[in-house]
Amino acid sequence: MEIQRVVRDLVTTKRNFWLAAKSLRVVEDHKGQLSVALDPVGCKPGDFVITIGISAARLAAGNPKITTDLTIGGIIDDWSEAEWRS
Amino acid sequence: MEIQRVVRDLVTTKRNFWLAAKSLRVVEDHKGQLSVALDPVGCKPGDFVITIGISAARLAAGNPKITTDLTIGGIIDDWSEAEWRS
Amino acid sequence: MEIQRVVRDLVTTKRNFWLAAKSLRVVEDHKGQLSVALDPVGCKPGDFVITIGISAARLAAGNPKITTDLTIGGIIDDWSEAEWRS
Amino acid sequence: MEIQRVVRDLVTTKRNFWLAAKSLRVVEDHKGQLSVALDPVGCKPGDFVITIGISAARLAAGNPKITTDLTIGGIIDDWSEAEWRS
Amino acid sequence: MEIQRVVRDLVTTKRNFWLAAKSLRVVEDHKGQLSVALDPVGCKPGDFVITIGISAARLAAGNPKITTDLTIGGIIDDWSEAEWRS
Repeated sequence: MEIQRVVRDLVTTKRNFWLAAKSLRVVEDHKGQLSVALDPVGCKPGDFVITIGISAARLAAGNPKITTDLTIGGIIDDWSEAEWRS
Repeated sequence: MEIQRVVRDLVTTKRNFWLAAKSLRVVEDHKGQLSVALDPVGCKPGDFVITIGISAARLAAGNPKITTDLTIGGIIDDWSEAEWRS
Repeated sequence: MEIQRVVRDLVTTKRNFWLAAKSLRVVEDHKGQLSVALDPVGCKPGDFVITIGISAARLAAGNPKITTDLTIGGIIDDWSEAEWRS
Repeated sequence: MEIQRVVRDLVTTKRNFWLAAKSLRVVEDHKGQLSVALDPVGCKPGDFVITIGISAARLAAGNPKITTDLTIGGIIDDWSEAEWRS
Repeated sequence: MEIQRVVRDLVTTKRNFWLAAKSLRVVEDHKGQLSVALDPVGCKPGDFVITIGISAARLAAGNPKITTDLTIGGIIDDWSEAEWRS
């Protein structure tokens, strides 16, 4: 799993059926590299989160039919930007 | 998932049976790195899209027998090149 | 598998059900790049470990329903920082 | 999928049973980085091909028991080195 | 698959049950980057090998319950360091 930070929501109109029912968030890693993650937890911009990839991402979405390769698995309590960027 | 932009179509004559029935697009990431994605959505060059990898790519293609490792999952409504390259 | 070193524990309050029952560790690779791994072995900070990714991470967790993409598979007996950084 | 170019054949004597029945090719990406791909299509050195990774590689090999993580999915008709290196 | 070279054996005392029955080797890629691979073939330091990743690594181990994400698939007959580093 990776430590990422939520940047903002992402809105798509034409999209795959199995993604449509869930919230998508733009997340960034410690270098500012952006990805898109499914959010079954309920995060807000600025939260430090654990993101889960590979086939575990579908399980973490609560339904293996959901076509995600990256899912937010939890909000980290004790993480600071200083620790992340070092 | 990653945020990519559609560059152009890709034509192959000799190809794997399970890829043959679907449109393929060349997509680029924010650094201009090229990949090839299956397109079940119907995109045109210049569209910003979400691409889905890993085993979820096969599910997103609408048929897990389709031999893709990257599938376009949706067209993003609210994304600009400035936001992408920053 | 990769050779990584355990940095510290990670505490999350809001998290995915299948991650909740297991210990999470922050691990670093030889460049200091951080990741988060599930620990079914029982490691302490400073241990050099083998981390297992991909779908094997779920099997290594002892339960394929556990939503991890990185799991500690063992503690390495004979590894030094000099060998790692070279 | 990635766009790669076939470099040459690869000969191995001691190898895994499920790889033994198929041709292996050394392929390179646009930076000259080498990988090894299974070739169920029939390529020759210099061909630009689409390579398929992840679990789809096994399906593309025509038999999911074949232990490949990279399989050639088709020969690209309309691709030039100029387009690739840009 | 990737072309890697066997560096040395790896000894772990506390480890995952499904890894315990098999030999582990430290392997390096053409940049000297280290990984750990399961060896069902029987390699010695200095051998150039094909390594298999993703879910195929478990199949190549001879038992899909073995929790590996990288397995040696064969020893390459005709490979030299010059070809590798170029």
